[in-house]
Amino acid sequence: MTGTARSDRSAQYGLLTWIAGEAGVSLATVSKVVHRRRDVSEATRARIEALLAERGYVRPWESEARRPRQILAVFRDLAGPYTLEVVRGIVESASELNVHTTLGTTGRRSISQWLGESVALGASGVVIVISTLAEQDQHRILDQRLPVVLVDPLNAPLPDIPSIGVTNWHGATTAVQHLIDLGHRRIGMLAGRSHSLAGSARLHGYRAALAEAGIPYDPGLVRATDFDYGEALRAARGVLDRHERPTALFAASDAQALGALEAARQLGITVPRELSVMSFDDTLVAAMASPPLSAVRQPFRELGQEATRVLLQLADGKPPATTRRELATELVVRLSTAPPEAEEHGRM
Amino acid sequence: MTGTARSDRSAQYGLLTWIAGEAGVSLATVSKVVHRRRDVSEATRARIEALLAERGYVRPWESEARRPRQILAVFRDLAGPYTLEVVRGIVESASELNVHTTLGTTGRRSISQWLGESVALGASGVVIVISTLAEQDQHRILDQRLPVVLVDPLNAPLPDIPSIGVTNWHGATTAVQHLIDLGHRRIGMLAGRSHSLAGSARLHGYRAALAEAGIPYDPGLVRATDFDYGEALRAARGVLDRHERPTALFAASDAQALGALEAARQLGITVPRELSVMSFDDTLVAAMASPPLSAVRQPFRELGQEATRVLLQLADGKPPATTRRELATELVVRLSTAPPEAEEHGRM
Repeated sequence: MTGTARSDRSAQYGLLTWIAGEAGVSLATVSKVVHRRRDVSEATRARIEALLAERGYVRPWESEARRPRQILAVFRDLAGPYTLEVVRGIVESASELNVHTTLGTTGRRSISQWLGESVALGASGVVIVISTLAEQDQHRILDQRLPVVLVDPLNAPLPDIPSIGVTNWHGATTAVQHLIDLGHRRIGMLAGRSHSLAGSARLHGYRAALAEAGIPYDPGLVRATDFDYGEALRAARGVLDRHERPTALFAASDAQALGALEAARQLGITVPRELSVMSFDDTLVAAMASPPLSAVRQPFRELGQEATRVLLQLADGKPPATTRRELATELVVRLSTAPPEAEEHGRM
Repeated sequence: MTGTARSDRSAQYGLLTWIAGEAGVSLATVSKVVHRRRDVSEATRARIEALLAERGYVRPWESEARRPRQILAVFRDLAGPYTLEVVRGIVESASELNVHTTLGTTGRRSISQWLGESVALGASGVVIVISTLAEQDQHRILDQRLPVVLVDPLNAPLPDIPSIGVTNWHGATTAVQHLIDLGHRRIGMLAGRSHSLAGSARLHGYRAALAEAGIPYDPGLVRATDFDYGEALRAARGVLDRHERPTALFAASDAQALGALEAARQLGITVPRELSVMSFDDTLVAAMASPPLSAVRQPFRELGQEATRVLLQLADGKPPATTRRELATELVVRLSTAPPEAEEHGRM
């Protein structure tokens, strides 16, 4: 705490000394202008005020009201390509509204501590990204009317806490429909964990698209893993290393799709000739994969815009029109999906 | 500006109302305690103070001194896997020191504006990541004694401005040495642009390792591109789509190495059997590539720690011991590098 005061003073001292030099006056004169004393000539006062304004100087006792608005964005961790896209979506959207974004993770501070930190920072509110919110935290948010917006919560929040996600179910049906349109019938899935709202919705979307096309659901073709690479690689090997292997795999995230590509490579299966791989997310790694991944794109930018917009409304005391919003996904076709090979197709 | 004051008041009103309910007293009583008035019983005062402390409440007129320390981290953009690793390195290291990190890009605000914003935010200083710093900004930083640390600057800063990077030259020699040790002699490079300090050092490291092994430098095997995927893909196709193609490619970044993998795939060249691909960075995408990339690892975590440490020292008025630090890189061998094929090798 004393550290802050010390460094504030030091930075200010540096600035005021510089301004004194620039204006050709003593530090004492600058100090008088800062304290709005009258024993300084009007010309000098104007010159120094102009330099202060140009350098963004704010008198400490006025700084509370003049400080730029800030929001906190809290993540489980800062690993994985999904995170970077959401960080970018929030930081860029907030920046357009002249709002600064401070980042945090729940690794060192609990969500409860972050809520307190938001108050201490004087922030306008907190965006909490993919987290499980304890019931007492949810009650505290509502009771204390803390401005909080959830992005992709893992569990269903209380109805009055605004949350934003994407059309996971519908996006998954689009992905699987794309594979069916190409002629695939034997379609496996690397699903997310069933306890995750998004993971569960994507699995149900996969099943719905199969059912719609009259393709029976085969649990032997489905593996549930975390949304990450290593586990998906092992799971994909399990699904692909058998005689009646699928001609297409739908992965519930880019990291899982990359695991599927590597599993295929290790087993000598060529993508997309012998196996189509379809992904969900379309983070930066999808277009940089080999082959580049066909994927269902999450609208990260709009996700960030919407989260920021709703949060600032809440901070201004306006409740949002709806507390749960799902933004539309989009199909992006690249090189990892193709019609199944003739003989494979015939065998069905 | 009024928005901030309004939202601050609204959030505080919510908190104080909640505390009144929790303590079973009126809002007026809570307000008396907040204003340290004496006409409240000691027991009530203690109960309310405890609730205020638990919820992180800071009296507005005391908040300036109590506000947690903050630093600004400013990037050119928030795209690309390198960015996420540096963001993570800085945010996690700062968090260990109880310091918050606010993110920004130079897309909407110039570096000069960010320097002013840092003062307005009451931040302890600014970490500027991979940017070209104009001379007037550099002079301003020195003249005003602004706490600023540069990470991987594109141009050489004035000697008194602290900058932190990695051993780009040495790391590149290690990478190329690894390929030479495997038996490669015909080694190409996807280099960065020569105007970038890091790009230039990596190219010189490649040349030094070749020279050390007595392998003549062949400019026909080298292409300079931005540190990104699309350009590297095209450049790699150019280098690989010829009779006397290299048996190994050293890429100056992960994004370029991914471009090389895709170029090889498109040309029907198998990695690592027919082509070894060696990368520099080792961001999250390296281990998730197909095949997983051998790479020279940048110590992102230490980079973040060092940047934060030096910045806070500067903010406390202590100049750093050295103004330019290079952190050591490390060789990570995965599946994208192997000895050259016998016939390829024999042909040399």
